[in-house]
Formats: sequence, C-alpha cells, structure tokens
Amino acid sequence: MALGLSAAKLLKATGLNPVVLEARDRVGGRTFTVRNKETKWVDLGGAYVGPTQNRILRLAKEYGIKTYKVNEEENLVHYVHGKSYPFHTSFPPMWNPIVIMDFNNLFRTLDKMGSEIPQEAPWKAPHAEEWDKMSMQQLFDKICWTSTVQRFATLFVNVNVTSEPHEVSALWFLWYVKQCGGTMRIFSTSNGGQERKFEGGSSQISECMARELGERVKLESPVYSIDQTGDMVLVKTLDNEIYSAKYVIVATPPGLNLKIHFNPELPPLRNQLIHRVPMGSVIKCMVYYKENFWRKRGFCGTMVIEDEGAPIGLTLDDTKPDGSAPAIMGFILARKCRKLCVLPKEERLKRICEIYSKVLGTEEALHPVHYEEKNWCEEEYSGGCYTAYFPPGIMTQFGRVLRQPVGRLYFAGTETATEWSGYMEGAVQAGERAAREVLCAMGKLHQSQIWQPEPECLEIPALPFPTTFWERNLPSVGGFLKFIGVSTVLSAATAVGLMAYKKGLISVAK
Amino acid sequence: MALGLSAAKLLKATGLNPVVLEARDRVGGRTFTVRNKETKWVDLGGAYVGPTQNRILRLAKEYGIKTYKVNEEENLVHYVHGKSYPFHTSFPPMWNPIVIMDFNNLFRTLDKMGSEIPQEAPWKAPHAEEWDKMSMQQLFDKICWTSTVQRFATLFVNVNVTSEPHEVSALWFLWYVKQCGGTMRIFSTSNGGQERKFEGGSSQISECMARELGERVKLESPVYSIDQTGDMVLVKTLDNEIYSAKYVIVATPPGLNLKIHFNPELPPLRNQLIHRVPMGSVIKCMVYYKENFWRKRGFCGTMVIEDEGAPIGLTLDDTKPDGSAPAIMGFILARKCRKLCVLPKEERLKRICEIYSKVLGTEEALHPVHYEEKNWCEEEYSGGCYTAYFPPGIMTQFGRVLRQPVGRLYFAGTETATEWSGYMEGAVQAGERAAREVLCAMGKLHQSQIWQPEPECLEIPALPFPTTFWERNLPSVGGFLKFIGVSTVLSAATAVGLMAYKKGLISVAK
Repeated sequence: MALGLSAAKLLKATGLNPVVLEARDRVGGRTFTVRNKETKWVDLGGAYVGPTQNRILRLAKEYGIKTYKVNEEENLVHYVHGKSYPFHTSFPPMWNPIVIMDFNNLFRTLDKMGSEIPQEAPWKAPHAEEWDKMSMQQLFDKICWTSTVQRFATLFVNVNVTSEPHEVSALWFLWYVKQCGGTMRIFSTSNGGQERKFEGGSSQISECMARELGERVKLESPVYSIDQTGDMVLVKTLDNEIYSAKYVIVATPPGLNLKIHFNPELPPLRNQLIHRVPMGSVIKCMVYYKENFWRKRGFCGTMVIEDEGAPIGLTLDDTKPDGSAPAIMGFILARKCRKLCVLPKEERLKRICEIYSKVLGTEEALHPVHYEEKNWCEEEYSGGCYTAYFPPGIMTQFGRVLRQPVGRLYFAGTETATEWSGYMEGAVQAGERAAREVLCAMGKLHQSQIWQPEPECLEIPALPFPTTFWERNLPSVGGFLKFIGVSTVLSAATAVGLMAYKKGLISVAK
Repeated sequence: MALGLSAAKLLKATGLNPVVLEARDRVGGRTFTVRNKETKWVDLGGAYVGPTQNRILRLAKEYGIKTYKVNEEENLVHYVHGKSYPFHTSFPPMWNPIVIMDFNNLFRTLDKMGSEIPQEAPWKAPHAEEWDKMSMQQLFDKICWTSTVQRFATLFVNVNVTSEPHEVSALWFLWYVKQCGGTMRIFSTSNGGQERKFEGGSSQISECMARELGERVKLESPVYSIDQTGDMVLVKTLDNEIYSAKYVIVATPPGLNLKIHFNPELPPLRNQLIHRVPMGSVIKCMVYYKENFWRKRGFCGTMVIEDEGAPIGLTLDDTKPDGSAPAIMGFILARKCRKLCVLPKEERLKRICEIYSKVLGTEEALHPVHYEEKNWCEEEYSGGCYTAYFPPGIMTQFGRVLRQPVGRLYFAGTETATEWSGYMEGAVQAGERAAREVLCAMGKLHQSQIWQPEPECLEIPALPFPTTFWERNLPSVGGFLKFIGVSTVLSAATAVGLMAYKKGLISVAK
C-alpha cells in the first residue's frame, strides 16, 4: 500500500496501534527499487522528486536518504521529423514564428485555465461542466493552430499522465497540471518534478517506515472483504486472517477498492466512481551501457522523442551519481504501451536501442550490456501507472466523493491528494491527511487540523519560473491573424487614401 | 450471475457437471422480479424483449413463460419546451422543416455509420480509430445543425445506454445500436426492443434454469479468488468454500472481474480493460395508481420527456396485461440518476408524479397508491445498469481482449455478446457461446460450432422497418443549404441573363 505507510507512521506516533495490510510481498506499491549486480539498484516505479514536494523530502531526510540531481548538464535533445535538435531549456524550442506563437499560447492557456480550478475541488471551477465534457484532444483542437504543436501537446499528455488526450477530461488534466504547480513545474527536470532521485532508490522510504512499524506490517495480505456491520470493522485477507479495527484507511488507487467485497455495500456514487477512474499505461525501461557515451557526445541523456514508430516518448539519464552503471531511462507511454506490451522483452529492447541510436546519432546505443523493464499494466494491485485518470464527465459527476469517508472507512492513496496527486508526494499528503481524519473522528484532533501545509524543504527550495515579456504578450496565432487582418485593412485604406490624395480627388485644406 | 445460468444449462445438457456460484441471495442478476401484494409482481431490472431476441424467447418458451405486449394502443406523448405533443410512430415527429431534415439525417447517419462496423469486431471498422477518439457528443456536434435535434440525440443516448453523450465513444455507441438492429429496432416499442414483457416477470427464466440445475446453484457465494496455478482451477467464495474445476466461465460484467483476486494475474491488457468499462447509471421507477387514467385520456403510457428539470426521460405503461395494478414505468437516467440518487425515495416519487401530471395534463398523476424503485448504481455486484459502456479510446485499444480466454477462464456476460449485447438476449448468447468454448477446449465440439445462429421465434417475427422515399432522400440541413446556395446563384444568373436579353445587350440569332 505504498505510502499508506505514512498514515500508519503518523497514527503510531500519536500512540495508536495501527496494522498495515499489504497485498504484495514487498512494501512500496508503485515505487519498486530492485537491487542486483548489474544495476546496483534501479527504480522500476516512481523515482523522481523535486522542489515543492516537501512532504516526501521531509520523510527522506528523516531516514537519512539523500537525493541527487538527474543529469541535465549537457544538451537535451528533441527528436522530431527524423532529426535531432539539441536544446537547453525546460521545453524544446521551436523555430517557425507561427509555431512559436502557437506553442507559447498553448502552455500559457493551460496554466491560465488551471488557475481558475480550485485545487481541492476541481468540480467547483467556474467552467467545470464545460471543461469536463471535453477531452484534452478537443481542447487542443480548439487552442492549437499548427500540427507541430498538436503533436507536442499529445506527447505532453502522454508523458505526464500515461494516457491519450482523447481519453482524459480536460477539466481533470488541467487540474492535474495545476496541482503539480503548472506546466513548467510538472515537465521540468531542473526546478521541476524530475529534478532529483533518491540515492539507493525510492522504495527505501517505504522500507524504512515498514522497519519502524515492524510486526505491524503484514505482507502478502491482500484484503478481500471489509465488514462494518458490527461494533468493530472486520477486515479479511487472502491468507485467511481476520483483522478487527475501529477505523480503516483504504490506501489503494480508487479503482482497486473493487478488489474488496464491502458489507454494507458502498454508497451508489462511490460504487460507480471506482469503476470510472482507470490507471494509465506505461512500461518503464532502463537500458544499461558499458560507457556513458551520450555525455561524451554532448547529450545529457534527456530525449524528447516525437516519432509514431518510436517506442519511447521521453528519456532521462539514469546513471548513478558516481558515474557507475551508465543507463538511460525511457517511458513507453499510453497507446504505445498497449501496442508493445505484447512483444517479447528482447524485441522491445531492440526497438528502444534503435531509436536511441537514431536520436543520439551513434551505433553505440545498439550495444546494451543490461536491460530492466517494468510493465505496470500487468500489476493486479496497481492496475497501471503512474496514476488514475478521469475520462470526460466523471470529475463533475463523481469527483466529490473521491475522499468522502464511508462509515469508518477513510480514503488515502495519491489519487486523493490535492498537491502532486499522482506522485509520491501526493501519497504522503493523502496518507497523513487520512490519518488525521481518523484522529479527528476519535476526538483527538480538531477538524481544522486535518489538512496541514508543509514547510518548504530548505535544501531543495522551489525557484520561480519567471515568464518573459514575450511569453506573456506574444499573441496567439488567432490573435496574430486578426491583427494582420486589421493591419491589412488599415494599410489598404491608407494606400487608397494616399492615391486619392495624389490624384487630387480629396481636397485638403491648405 | 444472471443468464450465466444459460452456460451451465447447456453444459449440463451435454453431460457435464457444472456448478454456478452466485454472489447474491437470488439468481437473475440484472433482472430482478419482486412479488408483493401491491404489484403482484414487478420487474425492477431488465424486463423488455422483442423481435430478433430469439435466444431469450426460446428459453422462455421452453419454460412456458409467456410474453405480452407493452401497451402502445393509444397515443404516445412527446413533452418538450413544457408542452405535450401526442404521436403514434416510433420516434416523435418534428414540425419545423429544418428540424425534420436534421432529425432524419441524424438517424440515417447513425445507421449508415453502424453499417460499416463489424458486429463481432468493432475495432476493425474502417474508421475505427477516428470514431473511437470521438465521443458521441462530438459526433452529434458534427452531424446536428439544430439544438432541437441535439437535445433529442442526448436523450437517445441517455435512454439506450444510461450514460451521457460526452462519456461514451462514438465507435462503441454506433456499434451498440447496430448490434441491436439499428436505431428503429432499439428505440421502438412495437417491433422493437421494448415490444414485450414476460408474464410474471423476467427473473422467472433464471429461476426456472436454477430449479433445473438444483443443488448446482450456490447462492450467496461471491467469488473472491481464482487460482489456476495447479492442475485444477481453484475458486474461493466469501462463505469459505473452495470449488475445484477444469474450466471456469466468468459471467459478470467485465468490471466486476475486479472483485476477484487472480493467480496468476490477468494479462496486462485484460487487467487494464476491466478498469475501463464502467456500468451506466439508472434508477428504474414504477408508480402505481388506483386507475389507469392515462388510457382514458387517450395516452398509452409512453412519454418521451425532454426537460432538464424532470427526473424521468422515458416512460412505458407497466399495467398488468389483465388491466390490474395500473402503473407507469420510468427511467431516471445518467446525469439525473447521479443527481437524484442522494434524495430520499419520497422526494423522488413526488418529483416523478409532478412531471407525469404535467405531461399527461391531469392531477390524477399526483396521487399514487404505491411506488417501487431500484437504483442499480448501489448494487456492488452489478456496478450499475443496464450495461457497461466504453469511454473514448477504449474499444480500439482494449476491445479485442473482451472475450479472449485466459488460460482455463472463459468470459460470458451480456457485454461480450455480438447481438443485443446489454440485453437479456446478449447474456444468453454469451453464456451459450462460452459454454461451447469450454466444450471445444475439452475436444467435444469443433471450433466452427462455437458461434451458432439462432432460428427466429415464429410467434414473434421481426418485421422490417421500411424507409420512405423522403427518409432516404431528404437532404441534410447542410446539403439543403448548399442546394439553396447553388440555386440562388443560378437564379441570380438567370435573372441577370433575362435582364440583359431584355435590354438587348445579348444578341440572339434570329
């Protein structure tokens, strides 16, 4: 149950007696650090952290787990139309002036729309109904004038939420980006969500919490039944244990509530919500090489790949901070994941190396020494990764019951968070909030204390993303065309006027 | 497991030894006949049958269960903009010539698009990708010129699949209507899906099959675990029984596979599919009156209600064939279901009677003598009703695994059918097909015999829906406007020509 452990940790700290029932034979959930001689350690699941993710950074610090920066020293590279373009900004730069206007307008608009959405209640946004009826594809069709920007916009959705623009509600996606701090924060490596990783792997945080909780953590204990008809809540697990508790925190993705038979049944809206929020589709792939050849060639390892035939959409350097185990991490995303998950592992590796070779312009990429991958779609107890998405229409109709308690059941899981939902940070926020809801129900805490802000991690402060004059004021393509239209009319009028004057048709008072 | 019983019936008939594990304390699934003194009997779930639904009619006949026609003798009524318009056709007629063109073009287009979709593999349609990326809302935005037709189109989706046009994939909905025989067959009472009901209630069919199967049917036995790692498949139920079988047919809606913990895990695409096909939202409401006052007033009891404030979208007479227990059946659909399910039952009844009173133009509707309702959204073991829907993007990416066996697991349930999927008929088709898949796996049947057509029920033959010349040839509004445009240019040219001739500007050879 991932960082549901954070709930147990908080409850234990207040003197209570929590038990953690974990379906898998390991803690960590959608984080999954594997250790072996080829990789030393590798994060097959959630790995990245950055500024403003202060809760997970606080936990890491408590356990002495250090972060290190993902390499972004050399050039990033944008691969499009079969060519590689090095760059060194958060987003790949564009060159055609029309495309620049279009690109700038798109991301400015996404952030502006996001600013209208309440983080804790997106269904209350002024345009909630309208935006929720639209898919992101429809929103892009409205905003974007050029196919270049449309295609990049698709990749932006694929990378951030491992699903397709036509699958997700615009309201939900705009909210998602907003609650991560906006388009720059969510997509950036430096100063953004991918700035850092944990030395030794992200699962260590869960492992440390589990160690602290000791015997309270029961592995290989999938819950299949929760009965709240009696004085105590009875929880049954596949290994035939029955646990009895005053309160239960369910810290799974909402859709995995379905693994549990409830008595009494869940209320109608929750019963339907949990069928309506599927998990994204992603295979995380790490290719290991003898040498870090990309840095030698002036590439940091970040590749933004736009090519329908390429399996991977985004890569980041995954070499260890001491330079050992040179590797490139890449994501197979959404439609590509569903298409390629049926291939044998070796075939996926081959295709991945081929695109890396093209993008980095060297045959060295064709000779990996090791490969690790994790297809999260096959995990029964995750359902997919990174997180749940809301298809069109669901947020406004069902969103309000997402973290509404049901009797003595409280709901955690990163999907119920309001800051960095979908990330490790969100899981901690949700776990701790749910723990405080239980404390409040027990009369140990006032309701006003349930939601608590987190002080900033001093070592990893958030820098602002200053916008330039042009980013703020460059017109959209539509605005530009209107402007041209008006200017043309004006110039034509001026020309006609001038000509008329020259021909003496207009009398001018002398 | 509803008409999953039909699978067991077929298997038993071939000498095998099936066991049926039913989650509920009753058979019937999404059919649910309740008996009491006020109603005699009432179908709170699936109830309607009609021509072309030959499998369910065959079963009914076998058990001596008779059908009767839903009353459609007097006028139907269409309530829109606060006024009632009596009519006597399958669809309410329109009056404005532009609206007539638009209406005719919409349904003609839906059927035409449907004709391109293979019933057994909608993902193979020539425009599968394009149509699957669209919601029905988007398709309506493309086809419809008038808000009158747009609004009726919304009701058409609400009534047929208990969800909203922006929630469902256009490819899926077009397929759904097609595999029911088209827009006329699915929406009509006479000669369509709502022509008849079963005397004594629809659950009788399941009850008769269950009686036939005797001890093989285990009630109150929700399955929570299926293990196919050994020689036999082991199936565990909440009442702590373990069943051992050579093959298992899972006859739940796809989303309810999630109630089961699988060992080994389901393959990735199925693991994700089952999180992506939610059930629709509906409350079925029966209001009972002392007298059948609507027939006296010349109304048959069918009301097609377009009014955002009205709880009900469609009604049908639910009086018993002998005229006793006069009642009106009405559906609270999709968005309205989610909004009104939080109200107390009495408040829903009050609002329903109010709209019936307005539509039928009499205060008699305000004085019910009894009320029955069933909110299917609250059913843990249905997840909603009538059936599962596919949101945009899911059919093309996941549709092909819908009935793909997983080891010794085979999949039935009406959602896996190719004729009248979503109906009782589809459930029988699916159950019998899955049974024959198992027989084939056992070597008792050739693969070519798995799918079997059903001879037509002689007593309830399907009549064609002849289209008129105008229905076939009336232009769309767009076509009409183009035509007008061309005519205008032509008339203008003629006028100018005539004038020129008159003024002697054109010399005509004499």
